[in-house]
Amino acid sequence: MVKHHKEAFDRISEEKRSRILHSAIDEFSSMGFSNANINEIARNAGVSIGSMYNYFNSKEDLFLTLINHAYQKLEEAISNVNLQDGDIFEKLERLVRAAQDHAKKNRKMIQIYLDMTSEGLTLLSKRLSRKMETITAEFYHRLIINAKKNGLIRSDVDEKVASFCIDNLILLLQFSYTTDYFRERMKIFAGKNALKEDERIVQGIIKFMRYGLCGKP
Amino acid sequence: MVKHHKEAFDRISEEKRSRILHSAIDEFSSMGFSNANINEIARNAGVSIGSMYNYFNSKEDLFLTLINHAYQKLEEAISNVNLQDGDIFEKLERLVRAAQDHAKKNRKMIQIYLDMTSEGLTLLSKRLSRKMETITAEFYHRLIINAKKNGLIRSDVDEKVASFCIDNLILLLQFSYTTDYFRERMKIFAGKNALKEDERIVQGIIKFMRYGLCGKP
Repeated sequence: MVKHHKEAFDRISEEKRSRILHSAIDEFSSMGFSNANINEIARNAGVSIGSMYNYFNSKEDLFLTLINHAYQKLEEAISNVNLQDGDIFEKLERLVRAAQDHAKKNRKMIQIYLDMTSEGLTLLSKRLSRKMETITAEFYHRLIINAKKNGLIRSDVDEKVASFCIDNLILLLQFSYTTDYFRERMKIFAGKNALKEDERIVQGIIKFMRYGLCGKP
Repeated sequence: MVKHHKEAFDRISEEKRSRILHSAIDEFSSMGFSNANINEIARNAGVSIGSMYNYFNSKEDLFLTLINHAYQKLEEAISNVNLQDGDIFEKLERLVRAAQDHAKKNRKMIQIYLDMTSEGLTLLSKRLSRKMETITAEFYHRLIINAKKNGLIRSDVDEKVASFCIDNLILLLQFSYTTDYFRERMKIFAGKNALKEDERIVQGIIKFMRYGLCGKP
């Protein structure tokens, strides 16, 4: 993995590193990349601006460090999901639940991810050394191909478009717990208490996915 | 509908209004709201900056005018879709096709919509006089309730969560033709030629929706 920070950032205490990252998460998630102020991040972390530039060459590099950190967090969350046992539907259900839980607990990180998908940040996102999506896509493709072989889903399922649909449902579910706009949108579609009815939302999505893959006309 | 522009903007020629809106679309879609420069918009439209402030009080107001314009365009696109004839599945298929077509032709408008969903623009999006989503959500809810009554879909479908799923698939499909990040993501999931395989993508999504709603185990 390409590092976007300087060596000095590895040498400070875990506690200080965490303080800086949290301050950066707060600033980037609330202000967006363009309006985020590195002086503000330094101040809230209790670090001098001079030190900040010992750790990162630029605001861009600090942002990319944060994205790598977010990927790590997401990978930790996924590695806690049991993806060995059960059939494709049980695995997808666990993934949907984990995604919902992760988004609710890491709202600010998802806001930053959303920011990164905008056209204005294309040059920045191109500098990312890896895309989380590659791992997820391969996982879904294999899962669907195996389920087809075992006759668990329809034989005419296009595994790539189906993977795209599954991930789209999961990604928009995650967005829906984060920014104000998407939270309002979720209430309009899924009901005014949707943000608190986690189980109803999971059940509805899981059924939609299950039948979308295996349903017979 | 609340107007976000001043009277003077209504009094100029259609051609000049269109020049200003197009210049604004170019600037906001490529730079994002925060980095967009109203001087740049004026220059590219061949209008003095003084005139711009005769038409709009602020960059915010110009942006909101653009969003209203985008809603109009989207409503025009939807009003061209035949939503009277056929069953729920035929209607959904026409909507998915129209959404794909609209996104491919109005890439920059969707980029601006995406920008507006970010947390940094919460205060701005709260000023919108209406949400497109309200109309769409009511349409889906009614469609699903009727299809349930007619026995076309499973009786245990939660019409609200199902509407949420349908719109999530349509919205992310639209994002997938717009910003560089989402275009790359679509290729990772749906195959490297996905952006050119419109029919395969539509078919895959339509089947996923159809069985998601009516499929039997």
